[in-house]
Amino acid sequence: MKEHARRAIAECRRIATMSEEPGCITRRFLTPPMREVHDHLRRRMEAMGMTVRWDAAGNLRGIWQPENAHGKRLIVGSHIDTVPDAGAFDGVLGVTLALECVELARELGMPLPIEIIAFSEEEGVRFGVPFIGSRAVAGRFDPGLLVLRDAKGITLEAAIRNYALDPARIHEAAIGDDVAGMLEMHIEQGPVLESENLSVAAVDAIAGQTRYTVEFLGQANHAGTTPMHLRHDALTGAAEWIAAVEGLALRTEALAATVGSARVEPNAGNVIPGAALLSLDVRHVRDAVREQAVEALLKQADAIAAQRGLSVHCTRHMNQRAVPMDERLTAFLMEAMEAANLPPKRMTSGAGHDAMVMAARVPTAMLFLRSPGGISHHPAESVREEDVEAALEVGRKFLERLAAEVR
Amino acid sequence: MKEHARRAIAECRRIATMSEEPGCITRRFLTPPMREVHDHLRRRMEAMGMTVRWDAAGNLRGIWQPENAHGKRLIVGSHIDTVPDAGAFDGVLGVTLALECVELARELGMPLPIEIIAFSEEEGVRFGVPFIGSRAVAGRFDPGLLVLRDAKGITLEAAIRNYALDPARIHEAAIGDDVAGMLEMHIEQGPVLESENLSVAAVDAIAGQTRYTVEFLGQANHAGTTPMHLRHDALTGAAEWIAAVEGLALRTEALAATVGSARVEPNAGNVIPGAALLSLDVRHVRDAVREQAVEALLKQADAIAAQRGLSVHCTRHMNQRAVPMDERLTAFLMEAMEAANLPPKRMTSGAGHDAMVMAARVPTAMLFLRSPGGISHHPAESVREEDVEAALEVGRKFLERLAAEVR
Repeated sequence: MKEHARRAIAECRRIATMSEEPGCITRRFLTPPMREVHDHLRRRMEAMGMTVRWDAAGNLRGIWQPENAHGKRLIVGSHIDTVPDAGAFDGVLGVTLALECVELARELGMPLPIEIIAFSEEEGVRFGVPFIGSRAVAGRFDPGLLVLRDAKGITLEAAIRNYALDPARIHEAAIGDDVAGMLEMHIEQGPVLESENLSVAAVDAIAGQTRYTVEFLGQANHAGTTPMHLRHDALTGAAEWIAAVEGLALRTEALAATVGSARVEPNAGNVIPGAALLSLDVRHVRDAVREQAVEALLKQADAIAAQRGLSVHCTRHMNQRAVPMDERLTAFLMEAMEAANLPPKRMTSGAGHDAMVMAARVPTAMLFLRSPGGISHHPAESVREEDVEAALEVGRKFLERLAAEVR
Repeated sequence: MKEHARRAIAECRRIATMSEEPGCITRRFLTPPMREVHDHLRRRMEAMGMTVRWDAAGNLRGIWQPENAHGKRLIVGSHIDTVPDAGAFDGVLGVTLALECVELARELGMPLPIEIIAFSEEEGVRFGVPFIGSRAVAGRFDPGLLVLRDAKGITLEAAIRNYALDPARIHEAAIGDDVAGMLEMHIEQGPVLESENLSVAAVDAIAGQTRYTVEFLGQANHAGTTPMHLRHDALTGAAEWIAAVEGLALRTEALAATVGSARVEPNAGNVIPGAALLSLDVRHVRDAVREQAVEALLKQADAIAAQRGLSVHCTRHMNQRAVPMDERLTAFLMEAMEAANLPPKRMTSGAGHDAMVMAARVPTAMLFLRSPGGISHHPAESVREEDVEAALEVGRKFLERLAAEVR
């Protein structure tokens, strides 16, 4: 298994050289380096005896159809687009691991048909909308998105045409009823597995997410001439609320609540802040917990404002329900971990993934690999070879379990 | 006295029309509208029988030398430059009230010589350094400032020459030992007198001031994938400290402590803040109280950072001692308020004024007039006629008291 793991990592390193900018990894949807990755993966898949095609959303799709095949196929894959100045493993590792899964299935003579999908767009960098690739595969692509424009003014429709694909055929990318399920393997992009000294975990759900902007409005005034008791300082009110956000999250099991951005006006050292505009990001795997938390925090903002003679305005930007992974496939992953002598760890993903979109269409499971230092979306992003090996062990047991089902 | 008050206000309104921009009041140091004000004031002073000159720092200076004069002269004045988009009364009212003081002194036949000074530069807008006018009069002008450049690249030296003045003669602006003292009347620019329903107050000191930037550094990370207990959030640490700043100021009599600006990095809603850069402005009339407060707040920043696994870096930008006004002249103002049937109110100024600079050279007193709504540095800045009348009553009693001294 060590060789498979080393090859999966080496392929990520090789694909990392296919970038829009030399010296760093930036590979947005349907750019020339994505074509390079497509060509590279196609050659590898064809050498493995797979049948390869592009769909009209730019997803590269390779079918492994063993001679003894029967039953529905399993999709294994992840995305190959990146954020700007990315690491080498986010998404890509899920594709190179999928290749090794097919290698293992072939070596072991499994009768399971497998489709590898290298999703073309997950990060949402080029057109501001994520999951374009998996939306198409899940049959959830909204043609209204075709008018979106990138930073250069190119529409999504034109970008697809420029890639020699036909936007009118995106609906043909959608899978039918001949798919048994999907497995996505992905780096955790967080510190949980490292903090628990674990290689891998089954993701049992993608957390739901609410985003707000919360604006405290007070009265800008001279910092020297306005006594404390006559102030209406928007920033001290905002600070009290930031503490309340953190406090609630610390008291509530598995709740993540973040004030990530803050803008103060007029933002001068000698002027009492008249306005403080904050972001709020709340995530939890149970929608009721998330909704109660958001409600409590908005109430608290009102109470703080009232007590301080401020006003507060809250605007919701996102309210996304949690997405559970498939119970049965997740149980297979847990069994596979035990069979591979690994602690059977389940966890929630706080971030969205292609698996979240696919789960609306087919039974979907997701396996996280430890992210050293919790670092991702950064050139220092890495994986440990032993964790990749562990993921492949789990992947093999998972495939064997599925193959046994269809036998 | 009502006529005197009305004329003082009307003169402010008239001077407000002399601006760099039509429709708003902007009058920086040595700009054409400042020349207009100079010409206007010179005509008025000469009509009153005063001897008028410009000094090389651009201060307009008029001497009232009554026939029965004896003793040293009193300086009465304030500044005529403004911030951009200013109100009509900041500084200017102190000059038009000085004119009415001379009118009163003349009417009442006081033997007191008076010099009116319309200081040319107090706000620091054009060259980034305040009090250029009063520094010259107090003999505290540093010729090194002559190389300062304004936004157009014009040096202070060139600006003085362009105004037909000789920068080599700035030292001649300095007063000698023939000055008994100075009185500055100025709007409060804060809400204290309004909140206590008072017209005027004697300023007994200008508060000392310390400014710092305080930077909390943590670890930027994904807001969805990083559990609360594994975060090093720079902004929640900063928020805890902002609360501590406010708390200490509320607990400490007459302390003003303000976090006026905040900058967060990377400042994205879905990223845990890795850095939060705050300003700190601390003011108090007693230097020891201010210094102890600053020390306590910096210690608290360290403690908060240590507890949260953050680091903190503090940089001092200003450390200015409090400047007491002259005890004897301030007592004269208090007596004058009582004689005018006004509550004898003393207060500290949280902002700097020409009186602060002059106090280093001559005995100086300062009288504040109520600022309706506490509004200043804003077009809505105003004064109440009854307060201007009260200030003139106090001014008259003050002049009488001084005249009696020299008699």
